[in-house]
Amino acid sequence: MSSAKAPPEGPVAIIGAGSIGVGWAVVFARVGIPVALFDPVAERLAAAEGELAAVLAHLAAAGLLEDPSAAAGLVRFESDLAGAVAGARHVQECAPESLELKRRIFGNLESVAPAGSTLASSSSAIACSAFAGELAGRSRCLVAHPANPPYLLAVVELVPAPFTAPETVQRAKDLFIGAGMTPIVLHREIEGFVYNRLQGALLREAYCLVRDGVVDPEDVDRIVHDGLGRRWSVLGPFETAELNTRGGIEAHAAKLGPAYARMGSERGQDDPWTSELVGRVADSVHRRFPPERWAEAVEWRDRAMMRLERARRDDPATFSWPSENPAGNAAADGIGAGDDATAGQR
Amino acid sequence: MSSAKAPPEGPVAIIGAGSIGVGWAVVFARVGIPVALFDPVAERLAAAEGELAAVLAHLAAAGLLEDPSAAAGLVRFESDLAGAVAGARHVQECAPESLELKRRIFGNLESVAPAGSTLASSSSAIACSAFAGELAGRSRCLVAHPANPPYLLAVVELVPAPFTAPETVQRAKDLFIGAGMTPIVLHREIEGFVYNRLQGALLREAYCLVRDGVVDPEDVDRIVHDGLGRRWSVLGPFETAELNTRGGIEAHAAKLGPAYARMGSERGQDDPWTSELVGRVADSVHRRFPPERWAEAVEWRDRAMMRLERARRDDPATFSWPSENPAGNAAADGIGAGDDATAGQR
Repeated sequence: MSSAKAPPEGPVAIIGAGSIGVGWAVVFARVGIPVALFDPVAERLAAAEGELAAVLAHLAAAGLLEDPSAAAGLVRFESDLAGAVAGARHVQECAPESLELKRRIFGNLESVAPAGSTLASSSSAIACSAFAGELAGRSRCLVAHPANPPYLLAVVELVPAPFTAPETVQRAKDLFIGAGMTPIVLHREIEGFVYNRLQGALLREAYCLVRDGVVDPEDVDRIVHDGLGRRWSVLGPFETAELNTRGGIEAHAAKLGPAYARMGSERGQDDPWTSELVGRVADSVHRRFPPERWAEAVEWRDRAMMRLERARRDDPATFSWPSENPAGNAAADGIGAGDDATAGQR
Repeated sequence: MSSAKAPPEGPVAIIGAGSIGVGWAVVFARVGIPVALFDPVAERLAAAEGELAAVLAHLAAAGLLEDPSAAAGLVRFESDLAGAVAGARHVQECAPESLELKRRIFGNLESVAPAGSTLASSSSAIACSAFAGELAGRSRCLVAHPANPPYLLAVVELVPAPFTAPETVQRAKDLFIGAGMTPIVLHREIEGFVYNRLQGALLREAYCLVRDGVVDPEDVDRIVHDGLGRRWSVLGPFETAELNTRGGIEAHAAKLGPAYARMGSERGQDDPWTSELVGRVADSVHRRFPPERWAEAVEWRDRAMMRLERARRDDPATFSWPSENPAGNAAADGIGAGDDATAGQR
């Protein structure tokens, strides 16, 4: 349910004009929301103007944005913090990952940002409790962690501290949905949040497999970008398990759970998939994919994957990174390979 | 380097006409390789004929196959094992995951399959050593584990046993490359191989995060299919780390390694990213993405992701699973959401 009150008007102020700050400016400006982009370093601010224009031009060239100049015209560049946040409905901090720095910035924001505005941090690692816990106005603070780049990956993790007001979360959620994003609200603070917890789990296993001489690093990457990642761009991990196994995710856990538990235990892990836990996940998955429509859902998954494959075939040059390997050949990634799987590929 | 001898001619025999067997039949038939599809159960074989035709029709409708009837015409259906493998260059076993069953099938294949043919198992879990170790002809046996569905995900893991001949691996590699696949050769047998090790690591973490009340199951799925998965469909995990951090994967490990180690240690893991290990991975990544071309590579990544996003925008109906939620609304997944993030979405 959305909040009864209309979301406050006014620009979004972005604090820090690095690549994430510029990315956020794109996200808001392309949907018509005015942006004030602040950085204390004049050279950074000047460079950001060119970077913003380049991203907008790329989006337009890709057919994802109609009017890049209109979007650029909505972004003003500010070297004065009070000027940047004047009238803002939402302040999005994008400073380097330093606790001290974020503490100082949020302290300043509390005094200069308009009373009703949301104060959000793009932090990918530092919890809001750590940098805003001492503030009188901490109830309007939270983490809103984007993926990189934010203008191409719609997810944004909203991580409230215990002191964050529910209205703050709702207001941020409304703003991001209005900007075409997919906000995910976490129930509590945890190091790495969810995005980097999941990403880290895969990366740690990848390092182990290379360390143990099972596979070469380039082949780990290939297994993901030609395999796992393509399915995960259509289905999440629970949905994948549901549609990979006749009988769904409960049959998956019964059949494969013991093997996955052994693989985990080789890494020191002991986190059993109890039937209560699997049942809870299954209830959620079945609300989205009812078991009686399983075959239909599998066909839908395949149609979506075929459509993406078609885009790759239609435009092999876009998907081919011309790497400087001895073959010097820029074949499309994973398609139409010659007589060696590595020729012309990453 | 490819083998000096031309690969043997002749059809590919597929043992077991379930969904993976049918998937393999599509992979070979669509590139003009004749297929003999065997199943001992007449009803299964009859059903497989319809399933094959349906997949070929879907591929044609998606613009991924020109002549579905020609492909269908290359597949013959066999209920006699000796008839199925007669003249075959390669036998691809796709029986259920039972050690006893695979042992028995490989024993039979040894006596009926042509002397020069490769005997490959689609097993996702059982090592070749376990089911072929006793065979006199074990040097021509290996695992060739596909992703699901094999006609949409190009990766296939080749997992030789210690007794598998190098020529067997090379012959299988040549065959799969000729069929447009991306074969990945593992250096040794390990439970789950690489594909399911990586998949399992993510899934185990996903279950932990739900168990601990950090996030709802549907939001885990959404973070992957609207976020991580979209980037992983273009870049593998090491490549992602390289291009996410200025200074590349070595800077990534230095900056974020301690946090990832803490997250791992919460799951019982203690597998440090030593500088030797990170350096070895970095060497591999830098052969593909030279550090001096970092900014160019980031732009390439974004262009590829934009092209996929464009395909989604051009065809929202294909990407929208009409779930039976209360809103009853089939909005495109993650795009153009209304005033509640879950409305009309999975």
